[in-house]
Amino acid sequence: MDVGFIGLGSMGLPMAANLVKAGHHVTVWARSKDACAAAAAFGATVAANAKETFAGDAFISILSDDESVRKVVMESDMLPSGGTNTVHINMATVSAAFAREIAAHHAKLGIPYISAPVFGRSEAAAAGKLNILAAGDQKAFAKVQPLFDAMGQRTWNLGDDPGRANVVKIGGNFMLACALEAISEAVALNEAHGVKPADFIEIMTNTIFTAPSYKAYGEIIAHQRFEPASFKLTLGLKDVRLALAAGDSKNVALPFGSILRDNFLDALAHGDADKEWAAVSNVARRRAKLT
Amino acid sequence: MDVGFIGLGSMGLPMAANLVKAGHHVTVWARSKDACAAAAAFGATVAANAKETFAGDAFISILSDDESVRKVVMESDMLPSGGTNTVHINMATVSAAFAREIAAHHAKLGIPYISAPVFGRSEAAAAGKLNILAAGDQKAFAKVQPLFDAMGQRTWNLGDDPGRANVVKIGGNFMLACALEAISEAVALNEAHGVKPADFIEIMTNTIFTAPSYKAYGEIIAHQRFEPASFKLTLGLKDVRLALAAGDSKNVALPFGSILRDNFLDALAHGDADKEWAAVSNVARRRAKLT
Amino acid sequence: MDVGFIGLGSMGLPMAANLVKAGHHVTVWARSKDACAAAAAFGATVAANAKETFAGDAFISILSDDESVRKVVMESDMLPSGGTNTVHINMATVSAAFAREIAAHHAKLGIPYISAPVFGRSEAAAAGKLNILAAGDQKAFAKVQPLFDAMGQRTWNLGDDPGRANVVKIGGNFMLACALEAISEAVALNEAHGVKPADFIEIMTNTIFTAPSYKAYGEIIAHQRFEPASFKLTLGLKDVRLALAAGDSKNVALPFGSILRDNFLDALAHGDADKEWAAVSNVARRRAKLT
Amino acid sequence: MDVGFIGLGSMGLPMAANLVKAGHHVTVWARSKDACAAAAAFGATVAANAKETFAGDAFISILSDDESVRKVVMESDMLPSGGTNTVHINMATVSAAFAREIAAHHAKLGIPYISAPVFGRSEAAAAGKLNILAAGDQKAFAKVQPLFDAMGQRTWNLGDDPGRANVVKIGGNFMLACALEAISEAVALNEAHGVKPADFIEIMTNTIFTAPSYKAYGEIIAHQRFEPASFKLTLGLKDVRLALAAGDSKNVALPFGSILRDNFLDALAHGDADKEWAAVSNVARRRAKLT
Repeated sequence: MDVGFIGLGSMGLPMAANLVKAGHHVTVWARSKDACAAAAAFGATVAANAKETFAGDAFISILSDDESVRKVVMESDMLPSGGTNTVHINMATVSAAFAREIAAHHAKLGIPYISAPVFGRSEAAAAGKLNILAAGDQKAFAKVQPLFDAMGQRTWNLGDDPGRANVVKIGGNFMLACALEAISEAVALNEAHGVKPADFIEIMTNTIFTAPSYKAYGEIIAHQRFEPASFKLTLGLKDVRLALAAGDSKNVALPFGSILRDNFLDALAHGDADKEWAAVSNVARRRAKLT
Repeated sequence: MDVGFIGLGSMGLPMAANLVKAGHHVTVWARSKDACAAAAAFGATVAANAKETFAGDAFISILSDDESVRKVVMESDMLPSGGTNTVHINMATVSAAFAREIAAHHAKLGIPYISAPVFGRSEAAAAGKLNILAAGDQKAFAKVQPLFDAMGQRTWNLGDDPGRANVVKIGGNFMLACALEAISEAVALNEAHGVKPADFIEIMTNTIFTAPSYKAYGEIIAHQRFEPASFKLTLGLKDVRLALAAGDSKNVALPFGSILRDNFLDALAHGDADKEWAAVSNVARRRAKLT
Repeated sequence: MDVGFIGLGSMGLPMAANLVKAGHHVTVWARSKDACAAAAAFGATVAANAKETFAGDAFISILSDDESVRKVVMESDMLPSGGTNTVHINMATVSAAFAREIAAHHAKLGIPYISAPVFGRSEAAAAGKLNILAAGDQKAFAKVQPLFDAMGQRTWNLGDDPGRANVVKIGGNFMLACALEAISEAVALNEAHGVKPADFIEIMTNTIFTAPSYKAYGEIIAHQRFEPASFKLTLGLKDVRLALAAGDSKNVALPFGSILRDNFLDALAHGDADKEWAAVSNVARRRAKLT
Repeated sequence: MDVGFIGLGSMGLPMAANLVKAGHHVTVWARSKDACAAAAAFGATVAANAKETFAGDAFISILSDDESVRKVVMESDMLPSGGTNTVHINMATVSAAFAREIAAHHAKLGIPYISAPVFGRSEAAAAGKLNILAAGDQKAFAKVQPLFDAMGQRTWNLGDDPGRANVVKIGGNFMLACALEAISEAVALNEAHGVKPADFIEIMTNTIFTAPSYKAYGEIIAHQRFEPASFKLTLGLKDVRLALAAGDSKNVALPFGSILRDNFLDALAHGDADKEWAAVSNVARRRAKLT
């Protein structure tokens, strides 16, 4: 297939590479020359401007947040106005409300839209092992499934309403953030009682919390290895806010989400913005004067 | 070894049975004739009274809470006052402070003490697959290791201070309770946005939360299968309170713990006391008017 | 002085009337013909369009929120672009960040700006007894003081930074919302123990909480008189959100604010959006199953 | 009347003095010789032991907490067992549950019991201006009313159930603690936005929060005058715990109470135990890194 692609970050680049590898013709565009060069190196065509990427069978964007999608895609001149068969697949973690807004906006222009955020970090993207949460235009879905297959190990089709794919992604990240805070409080409690964080984590992750996410984050928290960050605390706060916003729009109180928000702000106030988001665990330790 | 055993509940019975199976001579006592008969059936000796069980190499108690240990063991006449080699192994989930109080109390009487709470439900107890968190008298430890080996798959020695074993257990149960609440809020959020709870849970437990505890509780929550209870909500609240009390004694704020306490009280107010503790998830749904 | 005025709601109308009464020449504009007629009746001049109100010595706006100010004032053609002596006095409860954004925006156009939100409801506005929290262009301040004197009993000058006036207002409303929740929890606690809400409130407001706000809201809560609303729950939530947003921008965690947000959402989910904001007290009662 | 009195602290001494001043014959006992001497100086009779104070028309105790009442009064030999007309008036802030336990205990011994905690500090006690919250044996009530009249400006009779008097007192102190936290968060928010705490407090206490409690605590918080303490933070935490315990026993979630508990623990961890309880405001400032 012919695919346009913008958002050549640590996720986007390996995803585009896998599309090329699977035999698709991928046209990319980015402000960064390095990113363009990297994409050219694995066989992508570099467009002269963003507008040129919106063509062919599908246009994939994986930008950083609602505002960048709004600016780069919706408020630019890149979208055609007279209807098209090019499916816009938005793989970024945006808000559920914004996903619905894009879909409505695109519907007026006659552009099929699919929200398709993913679970998995850059290693999973490189390995083509992403889990893709997708929802939106069901007619377009079958057509673009081969693209999902090239990037992920599994696609979860959540139906017509694109917001659903985003709220599942948001819910998952929310649960991860909750796990970080739960580990952090339990570690602080144990440390205050004389149990070494590493011992506590070793026991937990070998008994009742054997999930890889607990093992990975438990290690990070126990040994306070917050730099370099693979997912920054500011990004974590962005996701907590997406969860709270999704709750807001449907009157769902999220008391754990509120605690997370307060603690992430506390972490920012103490200079941990660019550390691994698990550094929110410093808050529990600091409040108990364990540091 | 010669072992006394009291606390023949759903955990204690299979644990005692495994001790017998491993060749130890086990003397039990219980108020319930049924429990005594069950123990006799697998080869335990039934004592005439509680006092007779405190003899031999070790005395194991697994009673329901601080108060029952205080009443049955410490304020009764069952303990010898002139020193003994019988090690008291307390396998119940009691507070860290109380574990230290027992140790101090026993030290005055010359009785070796080990706190040894476990991770694992009755099936794990029956299979001898418990994880045993143990701390206390290190001289007594080696002697009783064969007893732990008969009951568990692994013993985690946490050192001299018996309170540590209890705070690790308390920390683990606290993390489980946090997972329940995190799942509950995420499910409510998704349901409000049109994603079916079962779909959300299926995705989560096949992607970023593959731990058995998330699978098991996720299923229960998604399908609201809260009866019959394998671990009642009132017991869950007891454990949340143990975590808060452990925090209290060392000035460790546990904001997630506070939310849990509030929500468990809300669940009690709405008649869910005897349901599976995962029924705390009704709170999030009720607050969002999803029920 | 010559004053333009838009925002003829329950606050704006009596404020404009007091300006007229004090001898100022007031030019108003509103979409509602009734509002215009009411203003004409007390001696105001009705403009043909919004743009005409921005003239003379000062232009006062008291619109409902950030978005309406943005739309009606900033993104319309009503503002002159070549510099002016007309001071824009924004008396609405807007966010601190937005007040600063307006000031910066106006500075580029050469328009003096003052944020001047108020404490006091429509009765206080009618009586000219408002407390005016003002900050912004200090050169313009002295000139417009007579306008403040006509509308309020006292003006609090908070200096150059207009955002300060707004954050004081936001902080005050936040404290009121906290008082509502504190009363609500205490009343629920007492009711659960057999003390009638009205008795508890009578004691509190005659002993340690004699402030008029506690008396007024205590009565409303004790007798559940939530309709008709003088300040709707949705407006209360708007103000709680302004407090949280002000905290967000400076990394200030507001744990009470987070609880308020959760409880106001719970109240919305249960149909209390248009009731008096004190109806948030239903949440505490409902959670304790007192209703 | 003949009145026994124990608990000669900063509240008890002036209360006993007012009883003497009103013409009652007061017999006191205390461990502290200074306290006894002070009581003798204003005309009280000093008993040889605690038991002698339980005689005459009424026995008033104002001890520090549940445990001291349990130890000094209930588990000592001071109470008669064969019935008596001496009314036990317990003026301490004890838990609602414990008040009911005392009443039941005394009923078995034939001793009339009234719970009568007070609002007011030592100055109000000295001036005979306490507000007395009383509940319990209604037959005894009329008899002891003159004693209340000598100590307080008003007695609030809350009926038969003594726990009600205590829960009203607990509810009032809970609301005060909430006010402290609300002020603290609002002050931190304003300070982060450049508004001086003293300015914010001056505005609040001259506009929408004119209550004496807001004025007094607002000043303390704005100027961080936490020493010497007139009511220590540890006592504040005790009262927060009484509120949470009263909620526990009736399944009333108190989310503000949970936040208070967490923040008081944070304050203890940071060495503020013996400061004025308003020092809990350091928590909000510290979390926002304003200190």
